[in-house]
Amino acid sequence: MHEIDLKNFNTRSDLVVDLFNLDEASDKIKVKKKKNKDINIIDVELLEDNKELGKKKGKYITISFSDVTDTVNYNNVRDVVVSSLKEMFSYLKIKDDWKCLVVGLGNDQSTPDALGPLVVKDILVTKYLFDLQDIEVEKGYRNVSSFSPGVTGVTGLESALVIKGIVNETHPDFLIVVDALLSSSIERINKTIQLTNTGIAPGAGVMQNRKEITENLLGIPVISIGIPTVIDLITIVRDTIKFMMRQFSYNKDNIKKNSRKLAPVTSINYLEHDESLTKEEKEKLLGMVGVLSDEELKELIFEVLTPIGFNMIVTPKEVDFQIEKLSSLMASSINKALHQNNKV
Amino acid sequence: MHEIDLKNFNTRSDLVVDLFNLDEASDKIKVKKKKNKDINIIDVELLEDNKELGKKKGKYITISFSDVTDTVNYNNVRDVVVSSLKEMFSYLKIKDDWKCLVVGLGNDQSTPDALGPLVVKDILVTKYLFDLQDIEVEKGYRNVSSFSPGVTGVTGLESALVIKGIVNETHPDFLIVVDALLSSSIERINKTIQLTNTGIAPGAGVMQNRKEITENLLGIPVISIGIPTVIDLITIVRDTIKFMMRQFSYNKDNIKKNSRKLAPVTSINYLEHDESLTKEEKEKLLGMVGVLSDEELKELIFEVLTPIGFNMIVTPKEVDFQIEKLSSLMASSINKALHQNNKV
Amino acid sequence: MHEIDLKNFNTRSDLVVDLFNLDEASDKIKVKKKKNKDINIIDVELLEDNKELGKKKGKYITISFSDVTDTVNYNNVRDVVVSSLKEMFSYLKIKDDWKCLVVGLGNDQSTPDALGPLVVKDILVTKYLFDLQDIEVEKGYRNVSSFSPGVTGVTGLESALVIKGIVNETHPDFLIVVDALLSSSIERINKTIQLTNTGIAPGAGVMQNRKEITENLLGIPVISIGIPTVIDLITIVRDTIKFMMRQFSYNKDNIKKNSRKLAPVTSINYLEHDESLTKEEKEKLLGMVGVLSDEELKELIFEVLTPIGFNMIVTPKEVDFQIEKLSSLMASSINKALHQNNKV
Amino acid sequence: MHEIDLKNFNTRSDLVVDLFNLDEASDKIKVKKKKNKDINIIDVELLEDNKELGKKKGKYITISFSDVTDTVNYNNVRDVVVSSLKEMFSYLKIKDDWKCLVVGLGNDQSTPDALGPLVVKDILVTKYLFDLQDIEVEKGYRNVSSFSPGVTGVTGLESALVIKGIVNETHPDFLIVVDALLSSSIERINKTIQLTNTGIAPGAGVMQNRKEITENLLGIPVISIGIPTVIDLITIVRDTIKFMMRQFSYNKDNIKKNSRKLAPVTSINYLEHDESLTKEEKEKLLGMVGVLSDEELKELIFEVLTPIGFNMIVTPKEVDFQIEKLSSLMASSINKALHQNNKV
Repeated sequence: MHEIDLKNFNTRSDLVVDLFNLDEASDKIKVKKKKNKDINIIDVELLEDNKELGKKKGKYITISFSDVTDTVNYNNVRDVVVSSLKEMFSYLKIKDDWKCLVVGLGNDQSTPDALGPLVVKDILVTKYLFDLQDIEVEKGYRNVSSFSPGVTGVTGLESALVIKGIVNETHPDFLIVVDALLSSSIERINKTIQLTNTGIAPGAGVMQNRKEITENLLGIPVISIGIPTVIDLITIVRDTIKFMMRQFSYNKDNIKKNSRKLAPVTSINYLEHDESLTKEEKEKLLGMVGVLSDEELKELIFEVLTPIGFNMIVTPKEVDFQIEKLSSLMASSINKALHQNNKV
Repeated sequence: MHEIDLKNFNTRSDLVVDLFNLDEASDKIKVKKKKNKDINIIDVELLEDNKELGKKKGKYITISFSDVTDTVNYNNVRDVVVSSLKEMFSYLKIKDDWKCLVVGLGNDQSTPDALGPLVVKDILVTKYLFDLQDIEVEKGYRNVSSFSPGVTGVTGLESALVIKGIVNETHPDFLIVVDALLSSSIERINKTIQLTNTGIAPGAGVMQNRKEITENLLGIPVISIGIPTVIDLITIVRDTIKFMMRQFSYNKDNIKKNSRKLAPVTSINYLEHDESLTKEEKEKLLGMVGVLSDEELKELIFEVLTPIGFNMIVTPKEVDFQIEKLSSLMASSINKALHQNNKV
Repeated sequence: MHEIDLKNFNTRSDLVVDLFNLDEASDKIKVKKKKNKDINIIDVELLEDNKELGKKKGKYITISFSDVTDTVNYNNVRDVVVSSLKEMFSYLKIKDDWKCLVVGLGNDQSTPDALGPLVVKDILVTKYLFDLQDIEVEKGYRNVSSFSPGVTGVTGLESALVIKGIVNETHPDFLIVVDALLSSSIERINKTIQLTNTGIAPGAGVMQNRKEITENLLGIPVISIGIPTVIDLITIVRDTIKFMMRQFSYNKDNIKKNSRKLAPVTSINYLEHDESLTKEEKEKLLGMVGVLSDEELKELIFEVLTPIGFNMIVTPKEVDFQIEKLSSLMASSINKALHQNNKV
Repeated sequence: MHEIDLKNFNTRSDLVVDLFNLDEASDKIKVKKKKNKDINIIDVELLEDNKELGKKKGKYITISFSDVTDTVNYNNVRDVVVSSLKEMFSYLKIKDDWKCLVVGLGNDQSTPDALGPLVVKDILVTKYLFDLQDIEVEKGYRNVSSFSPGVTGVTGLESALVIKGIVNETHPDFLIVVDALLSSSIERINKTIQLTNTGIAPGAGVMQNRKEITENLLGIPVISIGIPTVIDLITIVRDTIKFMMRQFSYNKDNIKKNSRKLAPVTSINYLEHDESLTKEEKEKLLGMVGVLSDEELKELIFEVLTPIGFNMIVTPKEVDFQIEKLSSLMASSINKALHQNNKV
């Protein structure tokens, strides 16, 4: 997510669930959907590479939730992340005695980008105990080490190479890597976690020539965990224009049906409503802008915001608190998944 | 800026330059505009209260700039802030030997809101030296103290009362108070500084019943300094829609005139161009949305974003770095304005 | 504890238990000793002022413990602090509905001095809820606010005056104030908590003209909580020389009695042993130095270390971790004592 | 310096100047002493390994100073460090176009141990610019990257292996490594810098089985920079007892000679005075303790402090401020030495 070059901005979602039509049957993709106490889990398996969408063969688990600041929600989301991690271990045939290196990508000096380094701070590390010759480590604890490579802009070093060097010298059996992502929609920011075994590119989501962190590069399985923590103004405006149409459509349908006119504006959640406007209705509402395709709309907004320098990437005002909660949740989930005996 | 209640959201700019028509002659308002190396300074004096716009009689100096991360720009902006502070001292008849208390509002645990507390950390404080009986303080240094009251959500205490209590016990002759603001437009975020002697409300810009910090409350002159560091999505979307129309207008005019079609999109700054679309053109471009008044447009966006919980307040991704630069600039400016001998 | 002037160094313990002979019956002092799971609690009540020792009439509860980094010990010490605070409430006739202001003295930029500000960060504050007119606060919660005045060297303001101003404007019914102290012995550093109702001087333990924070100044009861977090080299060396004599005495007695010669050095805790050396033995062991009184010994070390600039104040290397644990423990204890319903 | 095991405490100075008799001519050691504005520079070259003292063949430059908090002193010390680094470059035949990796050892969560990571934060990194294919880097800038491996207790990884892995993948031509050290005397704490090309052991100064970071391990020259930031109580007490004797000796000599009895204690710096007490005088002053050898004295203090758990490692109370100054000085010195054009 780091050092994004806004001049060549061409975002594409990192999230498989945003890219694929998950409702159509196909022999190239397997989809399982679950719902657990308001938490949606979509487990996608691509059975072959999709070059067009830039997504590789492998498993993608996407967890979406509405809140982790409340203790009950926090615990529910954590339980789902733990079981998704275990699901991934099982898919990758990772055994209980395999040594794990946990890597946190990102910049600890930039709050929205500090997720990875903050997770690493709370990982329950045991490797130095296993390395001591005269100590027997209690059963139920795995050999775990952890590490933050920093960002290229600060260290001058490419993260993938730093990780490769450390893997070569310290010999973990698999890697877990955590990073903050650029969000593909307002709805996802700080509310989605994607796990995959197909690798991660530091600075993903934007076009950059960063070397990817993959099983192919490192020779060991890689589980990457991404959480969208920032969003660009193009996406914000695009989403809002889409919301306008959906709300208009919702109002039209509902006013016709049961005249809910009197309900207060704040109580109407039109988000689950499918937009069903005709071309004429769209044009009436939003003119030429209303009939643009998704790609054309993004291009238009890009051309409006870029020349005046406002193609910004932003993060919610409460970023300090949200990143603290999310990093604590991720560290706790990883600890529980890695160490059978861990009670933290 | 703190603890914003999004349910009763009805932002109105804190900035006089956004509220008044500054080009019209009037016996109620005096306006001076200066330009200094790409820095715009607008010095507004309201000669009587304007209840409609919620602005009080007094002086408002608004400084806008495009960058403070480069050393040359940083120094230029600082020089302007120093001379604006001195202009304010002169307007308020503040003498060289008057004791000053510098107050930083805001929450040091929330990056975009930490501007005030960070400024206070770098203020050159001398009061304890003046209080020592056997020491003569070097000439050219003023008696200065400084203080951060924290935010009500953390301390439980109303900032205005905390300041009043401290003023009563420690007897400064005037107050400088610094706070982060909610931005009224994309253009202003981290790029505008407003100085005024009319007081400041912690949590200004949004409707809150916070007691204002004013000369009236404290019995001594108050110079407040506000910098917009956050912005709400309503304003972002409203601004972008306005930009669309302005760009459309610019393109129309320029294609007619001199067919600049071939210029790359990034090199066209249409922002200074006055939008001159007809109602029909607006409708063609943006339908019903295109012909809404500014207020109606904001209300529409409010009604779209609020029910689905996306009426968010955001801050640029680079907030850590920008707040560090701006707080350093403000502290340095205040030190230079307060202490004649200060070379820092 | 802040800004200690080493030139006029004349430390005297802040701790009543170090100053008074607690084993002698007297009509001027009441002493109760308790032991609770390795935690020693000494409850001293001075029935009149003792000007010679600079201690005022009132209650002093001293809690000593060996560790708070382990969860079990942490919880045990916290339970003792909670009941000691309640004991103090009862002594001062503080009622359940009295409003409390919690003040943290110290400098949040200096780790060993950051105890007070860190405690304040974790206080469960409710005053702003009680101040809202349309909200009824749940039963079992007290009206609590909190505050850190900073240190005079940074703000230029005298802490006692800042607190007085805030008390005058916000009207709490009693005050709890937390500060780090200079330790009077190696044994006490980060291992002792003293509660008293007799007030506290910021920078206590060393001669400074700071105004004390007392019931007399503020007009409301003051409970102060002090924890020694730093120590001066004079005390370290003095203690070690005393330990030498005590160990020598212990060895002499024990070798005579039961020839424990073979026990490994690390397993012999001679600290509870009373030193019983004759003047001749002391002289043989430590020459002229061995027969100095406690005061003379400190003066000698002062005269050795001061001219060469090594009259330093130090803190354990693990200060970051220890201050984090202690401040968390204190905040949790205060929250539990103040709010009957608090489960944190 | 990290994770010191106090049970097997047997400190030995890391500083060559504390271990060798530098005044004796020898064909195994070359010594140059310089003095530059109150800064002492001792340049030692060992012409062969000294196994007894655990010091390897190579160059050791030791810089001692009394203060870096004042701007003038800060700049003077920096100039000396820059020229010492260049002296080391010349000794190791490091060329202007050699690529450098700067490594900061230590724990950024523990203030006295954060020196290395803080230095790394301020290193002027250019490697990613050199790696871009279409950019020509301005002359006078070297290819520099930087990195903090963290501490084994936190990451589970051995620092030497982490560094080896990164060197193998990113191919620097030489290494600069910075670490905080355990001080060998009160005088040196935060007041000495040692540069050497003989490598450094993380956790040096205390017996630990950490792999050393050396040219031998990495295959490229290694310049290590160590600064003592912590000290153990044994050394503090040992030093003070030695100071007692020296002061006694000084007083004896001076009172005889010129009766300076009336000079105030703070103005007499006896530290440069050679102690010349007879055995009888030492015994009179300090009994049995007075006539112990340096080793015996340390062993005695070890045996006094260890069984009661007070064999502590401490750091000056002002550690936050001092580490900030020292790390800024080191980063600035390294930047100036590495980049000819650097003006920062």
